[in-house]
Amino acid sequence: MSNAALKSRTRADYAFFQTYRTRWTDNDQYAHINNAIYYHFFDSITNAYLIAHCALSPTSSSLIGLVVSSHCAYFRPLAYPAVLELGLRVNKLGRSSVEYEVGVFEEGEEALAAVGGYTHVFVDSASRKTAALHEETRNGLRRLLFPPPSSSPASSKL
Amino acid sequence: MSNAALKSRTRADYAFFQTYRTRWTDNDQYAHINNAIYYHFFDSITNAYLIAHCALSPTSSSLIGLVVSSHCAYFRPLAYPAVLELGLRVNKLGRSSVEYEVGVFEEGEEALAAVGGYTHVFVDSASRKTAALHEETRNGLRRLLFPPPSSSPASSKL
Amino acid sequence: MSNAALKSRTRADYAFFQTYRTRWTDNDQYAHINNAIYYHFFDSITNAYLIAHCALSPTSSSLIGLVVSSHCAYFRPLAYPAVLELGLRVNKLGRSSVEYEVGVFEEGEEALAAVGGYTHVFVDSASRKTAALHEETRNGLRRLLFPPPSSSPASSKL
Amino acid sequence: MSNAALKSRTRADYAFFQTYRTRWTDNDQYAHINNAIYYHFFDSITNAYLIAHCALSPTSSSLIGLVVSSHCAYFRPLAYPAVLELGLRVNKLGRSSVEYEVGVFEEGEEALAAVGGYTHVFVDSASRKTAALHEETRNGLRRLLFPPPSSSPASSKL
Repeated sequence: MSNAALKSRTRADYAFFQTYRTRWTDNDQYAHINNAIYYHFFDSITNAYLIAHCALSPTSSSLIGLVVSSHCAYFRPLAYPAVLELGLRVNKLGRSSVEYEVGVFEEGEEALAAVGGYTHVFVDSASRKTAALHEETRNGLRRLLFPPPSSSPASSKL
Repeated sequence: MSNAALKSRTRADYAFFQTYRTRWTDNDQYAHINNAIYYHFFDSITNAYLIAHCALSPTSSSLIGLVVSSHCAYFRPLAYPAVLELGLRVNKLGRSSVEYEVGVFEEGEEALAAVGGYTHVFVDSASRKTAALHEETRNGLRRLLFPPPSSSPASSKL
Repeated sequence: MSNAALKSRTRADYAFFQTYRTRWTDNDQYAHINNAIYYHFFDSITNAYLIAHCALSPTSSSLIGLVVSSHCAYFRPLAYPAVLELGLRVNKLGRSSVEYEVGVFEEGEEALAAVGGYTHVFVDSASRKTAALHEETRNGLRRLLFPPPSSSPASSKL
Repeated sequence: MSNAALKSRTRADYAFFQTYRTRWTDNDQYAHINNAIYYHFFDSITNAYLIAHCALSPTSSSLIGLVVSSHCAYFRPLAYPAVLELGLRVNKLGRSSVEYEVGVFEEGEEALAAVGGYTHVFVDSASRKTAALHEETRNGLRRLLFPPPSSSPASSKL
């Protein structure tokens, strides 16, 4: 999807939200949140969801998600001490990989500030070899799919 | 004050609070919040207070606070995705310098996790020469003094 | 260009190099360099080149570069305490924008570990409105163009 | 030791050195290396020494070092893109704890920019209970003691 198309995202396009307070050192010497900091946010909301809703334990799970590619488009500058609202969705759910998208909004502002995300490939935590998602992980991530899959064949007949 | 004495600090010993969500990369490879991250928190709550209550504008104020020394004692490990409650107080307010103390608590936990702080010297933002605190800054910081200065001359006669 | 095509990049595909020592907190709790850290490296080599070869002064230049989009593909994990060699090139040089690419190599290793980059739009440092690159900046960045533009019409006749 | 006394430290007061290139985001919006970044450097040189000379493997050693207190005094501002030279020494070596000191110098500058350090307590990596240093660790750290312990009674007669 092009960056121009992503610019029209609203909070209604995301399924799971968390609020993050920015920090003094998030601002670089141009006095706005540095571009790299957004990726720290992507990691934070994604792993928070995996821990809370997909039974991930970073220190003991047999499968962990490693990032193979990431991207971000920046539309409006943000600056400490703003409070940010992050929205998370899943755009694609494969056998062993997931594509997440995160929308970044400032508290009290309608317009999207930035949008990005990354692709996780799940691997065995010891061998680091690719592995199929556990059912528990798949079920948790399916709830973030956008657009939501039709939940029942019957309902699609209406 | 010794670290042992500081260990008994409670939320009642602090004057201003902010809540911070931890981030994935706050954990180092020992799976707990890295010791350096606490200093990022100290900077964040201190400057947030200066901006909100002491008229500091980091990009345009004529005086800014620079850190000349800092310290921290760690009592209990914390880990992402914990939510932290930071308490701020001022231990000493000089002509051009301030000693801040920050207590770090985990949401829902009584016991102090860490305590630290730093000394700010206020300087001219252009020349970086030491300067006396503006009255507005001094008034804002005086409200964080612990123990609070006696509020009325009458009471000091007793 | 697809990530698969980028994977075959070698040091010969880059024009400017810097060596960076990794840090303890670059490793996240999976014991490898966190995906967000690569973007800190991109910012570091790009601005170092702009300062050294394009007359950028981040605190006083009338034009500064702001990041409008960024991306990275990760091929091989890296871990502290590795020393990294970063290579920089320019893929596109517009009137007011530049597309940088950075290749990340581990010292002593042939294979590319990661590749990414970002697009800078140059803006007036005060108004933050888009502006055409200064000639000095354009000349410095042109030396990083890949493939290099033919340097003289005469030579292209051979 | 008072901060004033530490200010006179020179490179000759340290036993192990590493060079670190600063990064764009080390500078905060006051355009100098942020105070918290120095602690990231302390962690980096200390663990690099432990890995190279004390057989530490952060992912597999049975004992790991946890930071129980840290401190820093800042004498001269530093700024990206400076290259820094860090010097490491051990001030105290206990049964299960170590006090490190790190001097921060800018490449090409005589004067000390900052000095700080921290205390490591070694713990079992699984139970996180305090444990006596392994002989291999103790031997490595002893070589950093300042002032150096007299190596043999005989030699002092000369």
